[in-house]
Amino acid sequence: MVVVSARSGVTNRLIADAKALHHNPDRRELDLLLSIGEQETIALTAIALQALGVPAVSRTGAQAGICTDAVHTKARIIDINGGDVREQLDDGKVVILAGFQGINRNGQITTLGRGGSDLSAIAMAAALKADLCQIFTDVDGVYTADPRIVPSAKKMNEISYEEMLELASLGSKVMQARAVEFANKYNVVFEVRNSYNNNPGTIVKAETTLEDVVVRGVACDKNQTKVVVTSLPDQPGAAAQIFRALADANVNVDMIVQNIGREGVANLTFTVASDDAYIADQAVKTCLDKLGKGKVVLADRIAKVSVVGVGMRTHSGVAAKVFTTFAENGINIQMISTSEIKISVAIDMERADDAVRVLHTAFDLDKES
Amino acid sequence: MVVVSARSGVTNRLIADAKALHHNPDRRELDLLLSIGEQETIALTAIALQALGVPAVSRTGAQAGICTDAVHTKARIIDINGGDVREQLDDGKVVILAGFQGINRNGQITTLGRGGSDLSAIAMAAALKADLCQIFTDVDGVYTADPRIVPSAKKMNEISYEEMLELASLGSKVMQARAVEFANKYNVVFEVRNSYNNNPGTIVKAETTLEDVVVRGVACDKNQTKVVVTSLPDQPGAAAQIFRALADANVNVDMIVQNIGREGVANLTFTVASDDAYIADQAVKTCLDKLGKGKVVLADRIAKVSVVGVGMRTHSGVAAKVFTTFAENGINIQMISTSEIKISVAIDMERADDAVRVLHTAFDLDKES
Repeated sequence: MVVVSARSGVTNRLIADAKALHHNPDRRELDLLLSIGEQETIALTAIALQALGVPAVSRTGAQAGICTDAVHTKARIIDINGGDVREQLDDGKVVILAGFQGINRNGQITTLGRGGSDLSAIAMAAALKADLCQIFTDVDGVYTADPRIVPSAKKMNEISYEEMLELASLGSKVMQARAVEFANKYNVVFEVRNSYNNNPGTIVKAETTLEDVVVRGVACDKNQTKVVVTSLPDQPGAAAQIFRALADANVNVDMIVQNIGREGVANLTFTVASDDAYIADQAVKTCLDKLGKGKVVLADRIAKVSVVGVGMRTHSGVAAKVFTTFAENGINIQMISTSEIKISVAIDMERADDAVRVLHTAFDLDKES
Repeated sequence: MVVVSARSGVTNRLIADAKALHHNPDRRELDLLLSIGEQETIALTAIALQALGVPAVSRTGAQAGICTDAVHTKARIIDINGGDVREQLDDGKVVILAGFQGINRNGQITTLGRGGSDLSAIAMAAALKADLCQIFTDVDGVYTADPRIVPSAKKMNEISYEEMLELASLGSKVMQARAVEFANKYNVVFEVRNSYNNNPGTIVKAETTLEDVVVRGVACDKNQTKVVVTSLPDQPGAAAQIFRALADANVNVDMIVQNIGREGVANLTFTVASDDAYIADQAVKTCLDKLGKGKVVLADRIAKVSVVGVGMRTHSGVAAKVFTTFAENGINIQMISTSEIKISVAIDMERADDAVRVLHTAFDLDKES
């Protein structure tokens, strides 16, 4: 079974056509429009395979029973009945499925949002109880760090869902977190590999045999903005009101630091994705106006550098090594946040690549495993 | 309710893309591919109407319950359940339906073949019991003759289904016969009118108030080839074998003349659409080889000129007037065929336009009605 996306540029062209007619096109109509990109690819792929003598048949999301909720342009999969896919496979056919699309209870075509085709593939693999789902991309797999920054970065043979999720949300462009979450939930083993060669890729699964590796990889997200709120009244609920305002504006907040200052004022610092910076600034300003006190300043020359590894659960000293390494290399840590399996540090953007390289070496990731 | 086709050139581009991959693309895949042309138009049309403040919603053929048989690329409509179209209309919405497409019992997308969108419109009008179906084209309506040939040709205010059917099958490009047949069967009153102006068009319905008009229009089909079979053995079944061979090759035969010649041989002459001439020639040659006798010659400088009118049922003398008119103007009649409401004559292509003009005048069609 093969899941395909629209041809390069098609989805963007369709969105542009719709926006040329209406500044905010109806999302139901947009989904009906966008779904033709994948419908074109499945038919052409099936015809191309047939020309090579391979028995192939295409199926739209609706025909394969990819049932979603009714949230157009970012629908969630709620069930996959598979349509006649199993029957076609048993009949020896290669089934070509349109990724990114589904159908809701009312027979309306929906789309799954960014990374939707990866999600379609993993969800279909779950429905079919497939042994393996292969995600074809333009890199050989998941690396210990971005090879463009760290030439000695190694492709990992395998990685756990949790680590992959952290890497996905920390700036690794390989896959969207949603697809990885789905694979984790339904225990779908998948492989990230290159469509331009036959090299083995990186297997992503629940548990790996390399638990003794403390840090698996180093990620870097340069799309971060630091928001500094100063002179906030040091009263219960002031910070809560700011975070509520940000949540209402759909802004995700990361790496929060709060300091109680002198003279009954507090400082609050956090990071947001740079795409959300303007909305965050507006939301905070409106909130401070209501509080009658406080100032907000944005700093966009920030990068978030993270080390990730499930081995951190059972090994201590990772934070200490990060601090020591940065101190030795004169890299100033502005903020820090941790989870069970990762440590993230906000630093000056100018030192981001250096920081990734020195951490990669410090945690022995340059060596052959 | 509005039924739309694909944008200009889109269907041809999709067919070309498929044929670039496979010389004879699978018809099921081709239908899935071609249907995206209309799916694109309905979404964009709905979005455009919404931008103008008109409440609009699109429906694919499948969503509107256009149920067809399983003959891909030329499916026949077997039922229309309408989906939720009536509900949407009652809710004040303009429903934009994808023409040319339907769905079969197995959930496969089908297309209706040439003129399919006209057929979708008329079939949907029948299902909704609409008062009127308007077919928008690039001419003001149905004319007494092609205005490019006969400048004095008049647009008809109304015409019967039967006359429209004869005109459609006799070379008038306004509409495909299938859509007219469907309208006739379900008694759908429709109007052929111009999308570029607001002029009233031609109403097509079961009965017209103008039964005393003997000849309603003159049509001309220049896409005809005469096939002459000579020295055929004058034995029972020889002609039948030739027509059987032509039918097996899917060639429609028109205007048949058979002469018994001297010395036990017969001549057989008929016309075929020029597109089918090569196939017809091959089929006849194969057949003559088996019969052991006979020759075939093609003559492609032939035109079929026809006069049409339901009034011919109750008026005699139409054939006589055609013969007289042609004799007076030195136009030689090669073959003739008649039905209840039409007379068709095969003549030399060079005289076709003259023939249309003199018949148009002879039957008083130049006059204001």
